[in-house]
Amino acid sequence: MGHRLRLDITRMLSDVVGIEHGITLDDIEAAWPKAEAILQGLEARHGAGDMPLFDLPDSTDVVDKILDFAEKAKGKFRNVVVLGIGGSSSAGTALQSALKPQLWNQLPDEKRDGLRLFVPDNSDPELLHAVMEVCPPEETLYCVITKSGRTAETMASFFAVLTPLKEALKDQYTSHLVFITDPSKGNLRQIARSEGIRSFNIPAGVGGRFSVFTPVGLLPAALVGIDISQVLEGALLQREKCFNRDLQANPAAVYALLQYLAHTEREKHIHVMMPYANALKPVADWFKQLWAESLGKKFNMKHEAVFCGPTPLAALGATDQHSQVQLYVEGPHDKTFTFIFPGEYRKEVKIGRHYHDIETTEYLADKTLGRLLVAEAEATQHALTAAHRPNMAIKLDEVSPSTIGQLMFMLEVSALVAGGLYEVNPLDQPGVEAGKVATYALMGRSGYEDILAEIEKERSRNPVIIE
Amino acid sequence: MGHRLRLDITRMLSDVVGIEHGITLDDIEAAWPKAEAILQGLEARHGAGDMPLFDLPDSTDVVDKILDFAEKAKGKFRNVVVLGIGGSSSAGTALQSALKPQLWNQLPDEKRDGLRLFVPDNSDPELLHAVMEVCPPEETLYCVITKSGRTAETMASFFAVLTPLKEALKDQYTSHLVFITDPSKGNLRQIARSEGIRSFNIPAGVGGRFSVFTPVGLLPAALVGIDISQVLEGALLQREKCFNRDLQANPAAVYALLQYLAHTEREKHIHVMMPYANALKPVADWFKQLWAESLGKKFNMKHEAVFCGPTPLAALGATDQHSQVQLYVEGPHDKTFTFIFPGEYRKEVKIGRHYHDIETTEYLADKTLGRLLVAEAEATQHALTAAHRPNMAIKLDEVSPSTIGQLMFMLEVSALVAGGLYEVNPLDQPGVEAGKVATYALMGRSGYEDILAEIEKERSRNPVIIE
Repeated sequence: MGHRLRLDITRMLSDVVGIEHGITLDDIEAAWPKAEAILQGLEARHGAGDMPLFDLPDSTDVVDKILDFAEKAKGKFRNVVVLGIGGSSSAGTALQSALKPQLWNQLPDEKRDGLRLFVPDNSDPELLHAVMEVCPPEETLYCVITKSGRTAETMASFFAVLTPLKEALKDQYTSHLVFITDPSKGNLRQIARSEGIRSFNIPAGVGGRFSVFTPVGLLPAALVGIDISQVLEGALLQREKCFNRDLQANPAAVYALLQYLAHTEREKHIHVMMPYANALKPVADWFKQLWAESLGKKFNMKHEAVFCGPTPLAALGATDQHSQVQLYVEGPHDKTFTFIFPGEYRKEVKIGRHYHDIETTEYLADKTLGRLLVAEAEATQHALTAAHRPNMAIKLDEVSPSTIGQLMFMLEVSALVAGGLYEVNPLDQPGVEAGKVATYALMGRSGYEDILAEIEKERSRNPVIIE
Repeated sequence: MGHRLRLDITRMLSDVVGIEHGITLDDIEAAWPKAEAILQGLEARHGAGDMPLFDLPDSTDVVDKILDFAEKAKGKFRNVVVLGIGGSSSAGTALQSALKPQLWNQLPDEKRDGLRLFVPDNSDPELLHAVMEVCPPEETLYCVITKSGRTAETMASFFAVLTPLKEALKDQYTSHLVFITDPSKGNLRQIARSEGIRSFNIPAGVGGRFSVFTPVGLLPAALVGIDISQVLEGALLQREKCFNRDLQANPAAVYALLQYLAHTEREKHIHVMMPYANALKPVADWFKQLWAESLGKKFNMKHEAVFCGPTPLAALGATDQHSQVQLYVEGPHDKTFTFIFPGEYRKEVKIGRHYHDIETTEYLADKTLGRLLVAEAEATQHALTAAHRPNMAIKLDEVSPSTIGQLMFMLEVSALVAGGLYEVNPLDQPGVEAGKVATYALMGRSGYEDILAEIEKERSRNPVIIE
């Protein structure tokens, strides 16, 4: 095989971390029928064509179109700048970071088999200014991603780059643009039609945080030279497992169930995702959105106010051992930990043998950095376990397009199953609306005058300032 | 003035976010004497010369030496690679990110008035391999930072780069090294002496997370071209306020007190730090270590087991509005929020006027990205306030060496005061020891055979694997 994903739940269990903090096999057995019912529901919806995200692993026709476009773009451009935010930026970033060398953009051109990737997702003028300075229009493709074509940050950045793009390229500027948007409606679709700009579709019913297996994740990935058909094959491998009623063979459902039980039965409401590889940190960041937006909800499905949801954290091993692990080991018993073991590192660095008269570092001699990093991971696993902190491990045989596809699809299904367990809708995000509307009001958009008045009333109170 | 820091606590108060979630002025008044006693204690220790970190803003002699070294280095090298982890890496990274342009390393050389900075803090072989590929020995200075000279990740990385360095530079390699370490003892000090390697001191009694105003933060900062004397001046401005018993004039103490009261009286045990500027995200990451390691403790000062400590989160506005704000607004009432407003952005980007027939984006026309980002910040402030989520704001007039010095010194003092309020020692980190020892054991260091046996016993149980 050589490209498997395994979930090791040993250290979540009460006989390892203690009855007060660990999950018992009885807990799991008692809760499994609820998970089974959720799986049955998901499978029925999938069968009825009502869960488009489960169809994505089969979208080989889209892959062909993307690869064809990417091949031509690689011959024509040096940079791709993705303008998108939330799931529209984190998916591509996660794939690129996981599957291409570190410091990708800074490697000499001849060491890169794909475009440099810039993702100025924030509407931070200092960031976009720098991106425009580093990426001259002539050698740059702009990939604009928003389903509705209304996302403020994305549309503002798109408009901001249009002026220099038109100035430099005259009527050729449209060939430096590609859109990923709604198949039939919305502002970007309208612009694409009227100006003949190349575009890809975000399939109906697939929300931002679940869009990695659409062109949102796959087009940037292909442009940097990732084998995206292998990414989808990995997703397919997990889809084949994800409705399985045998818990031994369904990592997605078991992952969701253990997090849910640790939260509701053992008060572990902070879920830390901690890969031991810099390459995978953006995957943990992507997971943070998936978990926070899918599960952090005011209302449950019966429309009762529940204010629920675990808080996800992303940490990086070994770096955060020198930052967060003090709190993880000694602080409140309010967390679970998910290690990601990346298997073999794709580059190895020898430590060599230096200053062997120094006794306190002699143990490093003739080892490798990879060996040290694995030891750090196992040591932290051990320290957390000894301190009665439940932790599990997602073990990849290797970091490859297939295993990353498996990992991300598995976590998506986990979010859906966890939504069922928490009895909330994992597919919506009503809580971001208030901020969007307030932004419109503060930007002076017409029709939002009442909201603006309300905000100004709140802001007009006497501030309490300490200085 | 033009370079002030102000703490706006309006939206932490019960008359704004409600009595159930906000702090009352009575709460504050009742708790202030405890803060005053802590300040008195800190001032007495400072007076007795027992709190070296309070002396750092005066260390102008060190500044001169650093600037002299940096000036020569800037003429000789193109890159500085910092080898350090925890406070030894995050301090320099935070200063560089806050005070130099975005995408610093990728800007054309003529747009940079300092060295490119690489910080491979993790012992990840893929990362160090890439750094070595991008930074040829001939044009690179390696800055190795560890007080004891025993930090596994740092020493391993140092040894790993030594071989190619010696190969490329022969006996000139020592001039491509600079150490920041203990003034008198430890492995790096010993090597510096025997090989004549240039070194700077980490003053006694200053721990990693409090070392930004030592050469640990200042040397990398000077090498990238930051005015470090202004950074220290900012720190000095806050030191002058930080013992103040008048709460209206002591932002550090008030910040600590409000976080403590929100936690202990209103169950807000997750503290989110959310700057609205990409440049400041690494400052929020640095804060995470400061808060987690200083306050996350098993034992209080009476050696009672308390398992205490808030969990810090770093978020980035507006990016995390599309990732975490759903949870922040609708999830459990368990968080406080600290916005950082950066004042004017140092680069501005015009949105221009495009497609003005599209009604839903017309409000963006002729605005700037900076205007949008401020509106997003105020909108999120409003949305959180309306959802009864206590939040405060640190407002900088501008991001400058002085205001960043103020901000970081203020937060350091806040961590000390919070330590007093939680009745824990904010200066130690005993919880990381278990992991260090386990790493030694797993790396086969002699003398750790018993620990290894214990780990192997734990690891030998039948694993429960789902796949």
